[in-house]
Amino acid sequence: MKIAVLPGDGIGPEIVAEAVKVLDALKLDLHLQSAPVGGAAYEASGHPLPPATLELAKASDAILFGAVGDWKYDTLERALRPEQAILGLRKALGLFANFRPAICYKELTHASSLKPELVSGLDILIIRELTGDIYFGQPRGRRSAPDGHFPGAEEAFDTMRYTRPEIERIGHVAFQAAQKRSKRVTSVDKANVLETFQLWKDVMTEVGKQYPDVQLDHMYVDNAAMQLVKEPKRFDVVVTGNMFGDILSDEASMLTGSIGMLPSASLNDKKQGLYEPSHGSAPDIAGKGVANPLATILSAAMMLRFSLGQEAAAQKIEAAVQKVLAQGLRTPDIYSEGTTKVGTQQMGDAVVAAL
Amino acid sequence: MKIAVLPGDGIGPEIVAEAVKVLDALKLDLHLQSAPVGGAAYEASGHPLPPATLELAKASDAILFGAVGDWKYDTLERALRPEQAILGLRKALGLFANFRPAICYKELTHASSLKPELVSGLDILIIRELTGDIYFGQPRGRRSAPDGHFPGAEEAFDTMRYTRPEIERIGHVAFQAAQKRSKRVTSVDKANVLETFQLWKDVMTEVGKQYPDVQLDHMYVDNAAMQLVKEPKRFDVVVTGNMFGDILSDEASMLTGSIGMLPSASLNDKKQGLYEPSHGSAPDIAGKGVANPLATILSAAMMLRFSLGQEAAAQKIEAAVQKVLAQGLRTPDIYSEGTTKVGTQQMGDAVVAAL
Ligand SMILES: CC(C)[C@H](C(=O)O)[C@@H](O)C(=O)O
Ligand SMILES: CC(C)[C@H](C(=O)O)[C@@H](O)C(=O)O
Repeated sequence: MKIAVLPGDGIGPEIVAEAVKVLDALKLDLHLQSAPVGGAAYEASGHPLPPATLELAKASDAILFGAVGDWKYDTLERALRPEQAILGLRKALGLFANFRPAICYKELTHASSLKPELVSGLDILIIRELTGDIYFGQPRGRRSAPDGHFPGAEEAFDTMRYTRPEIERIGHVAFQAAQKRSKRVTSVDKANVLETFQLWKDVMTEVGKQYPDVQLDHMYVDNAAMQLVKEPKRFDVVVTGNMFGDILSDEASMLTGSIGMLPSASLNDKKQGLYEPSHGSAPDIAGKGVANPLATILSAAMMLRFSLGQEAAAQKIEAAVQKVLAQGLRTPDIYSEGTTKVGTQQMGDAVVAAL
Repeated sequence: MKIAVLPGDGIGPEIVAEAVKVLDALKLDLHLQSAPVGGAAYEASGHPLPPATLELAKASDAILFGAVGDWKYDTLERALRPEQAILGLRKALGLFANFRPAICYKELTHASSLKPELVSGLDILIIRELTGDIYFGQPRGRRSAPDGHFPGAEEAFDTMRYTRPEIERIGHVAFQAAQKRSKRVTSVDKANVLETFQLWKDVMTEVGKQYPDVQLDHMYVDNAAMQLVKEPKRFDVVVTGNMFGDILSDEASMLTGSIGMLPSASLNDKKQGLYEPSHGSAPDIAGKGVANPLATILSAAMMLRFSLGQEAAAQKIEAAVQKVLAQGLRTPDIYSEGTTKVGTQQMGDAVVAAL
């Protein structure tokens, strides 16, 4: 089994190193190969997703990804900015199904902005469509406005698009995920305003009929953004488009108060996947040895489960992470009085020891 | 001064009646005229925004709006659904500047989902562009996909668009609002993905140069959705597009825990405005006399301030609302132990008495 290891920028290399350490300790038959991505790749070769990195990713069963981005690339033209690497990988590999769990760990409930009773035991799975919508829709660009409020003025535009089969396939992913959980799906749309999300809602309703054991609700995106704050535990599986999913999955992960713990997976229809922490590259703390590697380690567990068919090994990692939390070990982002503050490497070592 | 009173559906008529009572008590020279809108108008005449209602609105200095919508209209074709009335009014009157304060009242801090220290004293002003973006962008519709992942498949699409002058005018509104507050503006975009919001960011930066006394920050929409949960008090004035503003303003209002208190204003360049509570039509509690009229009463205060040039009267209403809160009067949505539960009319009467 081949794994492409793409550490990227900021804290990426540090946290990925710990996840690799954990994978090594499991003594599975994995072939890991590293390549530059993001700002690091741009520095080395002038492009955030060099052809060799893309080829390696395509030829691998899974990608273990750190994080990309840094303020210093803000002035580059868009095509060269670090985040284009991640958009490029999603598109080139067809990684349409993004799994973003928002889990509130018992030991970390106090870290949430929300009152403990609202988030204790929280376990939401946001499934975001990742290769369609306004992210990739053509046409897009700048032009002289052909009509509207200011005809002839300089205008920028993008196109939101979804086809029926794109909605169907992410729908099936969501309903099948719900069958393994509490059998509830909330589909988030804006059908009251957007043609695209009227089709989304219609198709979700149709797909839902094939899963009579799963209860389907529809919710407008503005209401979903409110209900996540008001009563997050009312949600179980949430399925939505690329743009709304970007916003809601970040909102949901922040509700837990410990985004440094949250993994993510992005899969295509061949179960090839890209696995990365939900948090970013945090350039402000890069190189200081204080970043939390647990989200990346848990992403490696998702990788073993979803792309490599190693359920037992995945569970081993998850149990080890639970154990280090129970032992009271905490990186600074999740530290609280009465627990033991550790650095990135110590945390990785502790997970290995707990395996 | 002419005011169009559009009560609408659900709790709309009850809460608007209390706001009208308060306006009457001020004994200003106001000419109020009512008309049906939303589901009520559809029932009466087959359209949610009948021509007579639209004409009345156009001929008025301001519109006092209740709320529209009910589940029972969910199966109507989109053009006949209640919310089309509000979209239609925004478009026909050019109400491009939406003011959505998210204020956490001292007496109601405990009602927030968030820990009290994170929201006490919260006072954010979200300024949402309201007549552009993907809400109104043409072309839009259904078709056979011309290209993409599934060429030939059934596809729905919408167009996100902004012209430079549209961004400029909402930018000026935001910077001028900030000059009267803490002199900070956060412009929310998704310039890392969308052409439209790269232009948005560029133009905001340019407009900001005309306001050297105001500090401008840029934030991606996904990060803004997170920061609102993590540290809401870091925000003062937030300016963003129609779609992102829809989501973020609802998220922000829910953070306060008392959306029943939050007014809103939608203005055009002639200071004509539509004033409505931030909450919806709540059909589940309609007609029970328990709805909170304060958001609508505070919307009437905004109307006096922004469209009718009656700053003193606006302040009178706001002081009266503060007073009834201090007296411990609460409708059920904001009730807590030790306070006095009152109904919609009693609350309206109490505000009149406090004037
Ligand atoms: C970096 C950016 C392009 C990306 C996105 O918007 O999808 C990120 O926010 C994410 O959610 O993975
Ligand atoms: C009813 C709907 C069309 C509307 C919107 O999306 O603008 C509402 O959510 C709002 O925010 O006023």
